[in-house]
Amino acid sequence: MALQNTRANNYPEWYQNVITAADMAELSPSPGCMVVKPWGYGIWERIQRLLDDKFKETGHENCYFPLFIPLSFFQKEADHVEGFAKEMAVVTHSRLTSVDGKLVPASPLEEPLIVRPTSEAIIAESFSKWIKSYRDLPVMINQWANVVRWEMRPRIFLRTREFLWQEGHTAHATYDEAQAEAKQMLKVYVDFAQNCLAIPVIPGVKPEHEKFPGAVDTYTFEPMMQDGRALQAGTSHFLGQTFAKSANIKFQNKNGEWEYAYTTSWGVTTRLIGGMVMSHADDEGMVVPPVMAPYQVVIVPMLKDPAKVEAVMDYAEKVRSAIASQMAFGEKIRVKVDTRDKNSTDKYWEWARKGVPVIVEVGPRDMDGNNVMVRERLKLGTPEGKQVQSYDDFVATICDRLVAIQNTMFETAKKRLYDNLRTDIKTPQEMQEYFKNQNVWLGSDKPKVAFVRGKWSGDEETLEKMKEMKITIRCIPFDQSETEGICLISGKPATMDVIYARSY
Amino acid sequence: MALQNTRANNYPEWYQNVITAADMAELSPSPGCMVVKPWGYGIWERIQRLLDDKFKETGHENCYFPLFIPLSFFQKEADHVEGFAKEMAVVTHSRLTSVDGKLVPASPLEEPLIVRPTSEAIIAESFSKWIKSYRDLPVMINQWANVVRWEMRPRIFLRTREFLWQEGHTAHATYDEAQAEAKQMLKVYVDFAQNCLAIPVIPGVKPEHEKFPGAVDTYTFEPMMQDGRALQAGTSHFLGQTFAKSANIKFQNKNGEWEYAYTTSWGVTTRLIGGMVMSHADDEGMVVPPVMAPYQVVIVPMLKDPAKVEAVMDYAEKVRSAIASQMAFGEKIRVKVDTRDKNSTDKYWEWARKGVPVIVEVGPRDMDGNNVMVRERLKLGTPEGKQVQSYDDFVATICDRLVAIQNTMFETAKKRLYDNLRTDIKTPQEMQEYFKNQNVWLGSDKPKVAFVRGKWSGDEETLEKMKEMKITIRCIPFDQSETEGICLISGKPATMDVIYARSY
Repeated sequence: MALQNTRANNYPEWYQNVITAADMAELSPSPGCMVVKPWGYGIWERIQRLLDDKFKETGHENCYFPLFIPLSFFQKEADHVEGFAKEMAVVTHSRLTSVDGKLVPASPLEEPLIVRPTSEAIIAESFSKWIKSYRDLPVMINQWANVVRWEMRPRIFLRTREFLWQEGHTAHATYDEAQAEAKQMLKVYVDFAQNCLAIPVIPGVKPEHEKFPGAVDTYTFEPMMQDGRALQAGTSHFLGQTFAKSANIKFQNKNGEWEYAYTTSWGVTTRLIGGMVMSHADDEGMVVPPVMAPYQVVIVPMLKDPAKVEAVMDYAEKVRSAIASQMAFGEKIRVKVDTRDKNSTDKYWEWARKGVPVIVEVGPRDMDGNNVMVRERLKLGTPEGKQVQSYDDFVATICDRLVAIQNTMFETAKKRLYDNLRTDIKTPQEMQEYFKNQNVWLGSDKPKVAFVRGKWSGDEETLEKMKEMKITIRCIPFDQSETEGICLISGKPATMDVIYARSY
Repeated sequence: MALQNTRANNYPEWYQNVITAADMAELSPSPGCMVVKPWGYGIWERIQRLLDDKFKETGHENCYFPLFIPLSFFQKEADHVEGFAKEMAVVTHSRLTSVDGKLVPASPLEEPLIVRPTSEAIIAESFSKWIKSYRDLPVMINQWANVVRWEMRPRIFLRTREFLWQEGHTAHATYDEAQAEAKQMLKVYVDFAQNCLAIPVIPGVKPEHEKFPGAVDTYTFEPMMQDGRALQAGTSHFLGQTFAKSANIKFQNKNGEWEYAYTTSWGVTTRLIGGMVMSHADDEGMVVPPVMAPYQVVIVPMLKDPAKVEAVMDYAEKVRSAIASQMAFGEKIRVKVDTRDKNSTDKYWEWARKGVPVIVEVGPRDMDGNNVMVRERLKLGTPEGKQVQSYDDFVATICDRLVAIQNTMFETAKKRLYDNLRTDIKTPQEMQEYFKNQNVWLGSDKPKVAFVRGKWSGDEETLEKMKEMKITIRCIPFDQSETEGICLISGKPATMDVIYARSY
């Protein structure tokens, strides 16, 4: 029942196959945009719920700012950026009308409107109105919204013209407080990636040339996909006084003097779902970590014998309610009985391809023996992946089982990250040799290309060379070795450790 | 501390004053759009959470469809509608570029895109792909999204160019099942309006000329605002096979024959927040029903004496945790200690204007006597509105108190609805007389204008007359009297009961 393409034979196509097989999302008739289907959106709802709770625990409140940003808001930026050009959706008319039976745009707007690619500019404008005194600080808000960037090569979850995200924006009285906020939110993301998404990451700071425009520091967390590429998964920016100065966000301090505030912003997107696919899915389809699964357990009743339908359904319901009343990871276990009028083998495969952690089959024989057939997604195709267990044992151990699956998924991904994080490359020649290959599935027997940790001298000339090699500096990890060495690009002496990789 | 305008002297301005005083939302630099601030968005999050739970309980799953709809999707509709013209935001370019230092739209799109005013057309297209067999039915989905309609006279929460909403869309194998779904979702809305928003409503069906285009039946629930107007608060449509036929949503039934599906759609918007303001707010500001309040209880510590700050803060925290561990309306009580560095009187008024149901002041004297000062928002300005209560009594009775407040708010609004629902108007002359006045606050001593329940003959000519009187038929209530009478517009014999009113 493997997918049409495997990770080994065609990694990019395999990615699309997983998303289709799991029925998570599809391309829409609206070019470059996606339809997120219930299973994909269910995972997004889990992301929202878990992160939102963390945002609120750390003192943030949600707001909503307009979809449209007047063109003039971008003029300021254009004044500073040479050759300014942005791929953005531009609204120029406010009406449709019919001319000779054909619909055409009518009523041109006085000022075109941009569909938000991000909301820094319009939120900074609000902050400048809201903030007058040190008593108004800090302002700590977040919004869950859709944003639009006119991608030319769209790819579901990774790069679509419209995507969903959250963007946090805060303003503070002091440099230190804003820095602490930006770092705190990076920590929230890192903990979430590792503990919930089961994706190990390398946290650090972006080099100067990779920072968000206007940021003093851009903090990032870099996961490794199954083909050795990094995924830009989310960032937290300490913006210093850059936006405060351009939008005039000023407050009177305790001494009555006017000062500019310090701001931060931070966000993650539906791209995280793409990251989950490329971290955990296998050649049979999606695999969702239990913390993130819309359903952690699905019960498939076997209903071939019409005389036993009612009894088997009752038994399935008994299993469900025994599971549903238990907690795992601090929440009620999410469990469903699939009562649809479909063949049970088809149902099983549907849920397996969606990556439900535990699928339980219950038929007349299981019922009579007071047993259940337990199938763990992670062990699909192995003898342990399909085991008869007594009802009592299953119910008593389901929490531990879910926790064990979550841990195994994280440990597997972590082992992959550290097995493929090269730290033994010491010269530009070795670097060239290593990155002359294409990224392939790390489980294949072709030459592997993944992350390299090594020195960087930081010169301008290295940027051009990295472009030729199609690699980037993913981050300057927080844990610097402080040793002397030579830059893996320029060959010059260097002390800074960085992570080199190709990325999505 | 009353608002600048009262309901009696300037009802429309009073509405804006409440929203500003409660800091719920404001107009944005993006023309006709709003910024929803934390308190307003907090209420929207409550709406989302409570309705979403109901949607899921009734078998629906969330999805997400694209913001942009290709222009050609509207051509079909334009072919049917004479003089078709729609106020909608049209995206015509995908780039901004700088020409002589000035930003201009660039890269015209081959086909313009419409920012969704509603998603029927694009969702029907997906349904036609997803549905092949009776086994695929029903499809029951919902999305939470922003939509855009180019309003010319925007008003916060009531009519803004961009607003937030949910839109449910379902497809079924039979007429009866789809009808039952449309009615079920109306019931979900009615229960939510009455039990959560504390807004009594009159449920019914829209007359032919007020139906959603393409709908067979549009079900509605009509609340009365404090000025006697109705608010179009939400609708549930039974769409029959209209959209199935235009988008080719077909399935093979059990006999292998192809049939068109039956569809429904239903939605409510951020307009509900405007409805809460106009149902419950008073001349001091907003009043939020406990079920909907982001915080049901706010504790304001009195910290004037520096020597007692720590002890008072500890006491406030003790009160908070005794409240936070209790349940009301099936959820943990939402309680906050306001620790901000502000004057406590200012803090009290801030929360009172936001409409927090219960505000508790705790100062050194309260602490020493093991008491709290309890202020009920609903009783603001009355002697019972400010009472010292022992800590033990307060903690023991808070749940009952919140329930009592919720009930009082609903009963007050219900009394207003039925006191102002005229059923004694029997002739077109009396109707003319009644509606010759403007709508004013129902608590004022000016002539009242509100709802009239009476007969309607349904002729074409009545529509024109109602337009002159600036009234509409809000609904044909489900509870028909089946008596004979005369139409209050045409004077002709009629049996159908309808609700006449002016509306938002």
